[in-house]
Amino acid sequence: MGASTKQGHDIALKSRKIVRSLIGDKTNHLSAKEKTIVERIVHSTADVEYAELCQLSKDFVQNSLLSLKNNRDILTDIKMVSVGINKHSGEVKCFIDHPETIKLAKEYEITRAAAAMQYAAESNFSGMVVIGNAPTALYKVIELVEKGLMDVDSVIGVPVGFIGAAEAKNALKNTKIPYMITKGPKGGTPIAVAATNALIGLNQDNLKEDPL
Amino acid sequence: MGASTKQGHDIALKSRKIVRSLIGDKTNHLSAKEKTIVERIVHSTADVEYAELCQLSKDFVQNSLLSLKNNRDILTDIKMVSVGINKHSGEVKCFIDHPETIKLAKEYEITRAAAAMQYAAESNFSGMVVIGNAPTALYKVIELVEKGLMDVDSVIGVPVGFIGAAEAKNALKNTKIPYMITKGPKGGTPIAVAATNALIGLNQDNLKEDPL
Repeated sequence: MGASTKQGHDIALKSRKIVRSLIGDKTNHLSAKEKTIVERIVHSTADVEYAELCQLSKDFVQNSLLSLKNNRDILTDIKMVSVGINKHSGEVKCFIDHPETIKLAKEYEITRAAAAMQYAAESNFSGMVVIGNAPTALYKVIELVEKGLMDVDSVIGVPVGFIGAAEAKNALKNTKIPYMITKGPKGGTPIAVAATNALIGLNQDNLKEDPL
Repeated sequence: MGASTKQGHDIALKSRKIVRSLIGDKTNHLSAKEKTIVERIVHSTADVEYAELCQLSKDFVQNSLLSLKNNRDILTDIKMVSVGINKHSGEVKCFIDHPETIKLAKEYEITRAAAAMQYAAESNFSGMVVIGNAPTALYKVIELVEKGLMDVDSVIGVPVGFIGAAEAKNALKNTKIPYMITKGPKGGTPIAVAATNALIGLNQDNLKEDPL
């Protein structure tokens, strides 16, 4: 679970057991890999409600793992999400502070998080998209993918907030994009980071089992 | 609320109104400044439970604002917290990846988050401490302050998790350190960042009103 010392590792193991005991009955419908993702989210937030809020499309895990295996990039909406992502063999990109993003935001009168997605598409980004905060960024990704302007393997779409977050996540569910969302207004950085790092861990497990 | 575009600003304003309507009856015991902090936490997490989980010592806001006014430093346990903090006029420090931290963690068989606090004390850090994740870091800060080895103005102690987080926060409550905590296992990066940025905003409001 990301711990790098013996004490950290012991804490993570004990926590995992507690999480399983708390949410086991709510995750029976999930595959083993999907469970790993949801358990890590509950471990990271200490919020058992996420066991019921997480929704994953049937093709989400497979597409995300293929993306990671091929060392494709990860694009995040904000820096807090990108610095939380560990051990990815491709690049982790975040354009929220990029001068071109700031220019696009002004030109189109959109949020910087949305402009960052547009700039990523213009820079030929391809890979997995992780939106931990901004509904406007998620809407922009959906728009770009549906116009054929962005090459996206899967989307972790867990923006947070009372304005537009639930609606943006519902919009993602109604696309053909492989997705993970959290129902309703809740979500945020720790959920985005936990889901991404769980997938990176699963990819590493796969590579150990099948190094070719 | 940190938004830098008109659309972002409009969303933040609407959200603030919704947050007030949702938690207004749970924050009557708080001062106006304390309410600002708690509202920002609920805005950032879309989790109204935080209105009841946040506890602030009577001297927390005053001591934190004095620390910020004097441009003293902010120390965080992990990078996700430090990159989320905006517009602080002092330095925002995080030593989790520092070579000396890694050395100390090995030498004393402690977590890197705890070792980072020890290294900060050895480097004569002084200012506000913000712990968003690791209970072990919070215990270490308490130990260092009580031994007179660390100069701390206030602590935002909101580590998260089922192992030790609630206990560490209770331990902080039983010190003389000005504190903000979240009761129980819940807490984390967005809570730590929201509380810190709310304080930075309050400090800026103070400076506008009284520029001398």
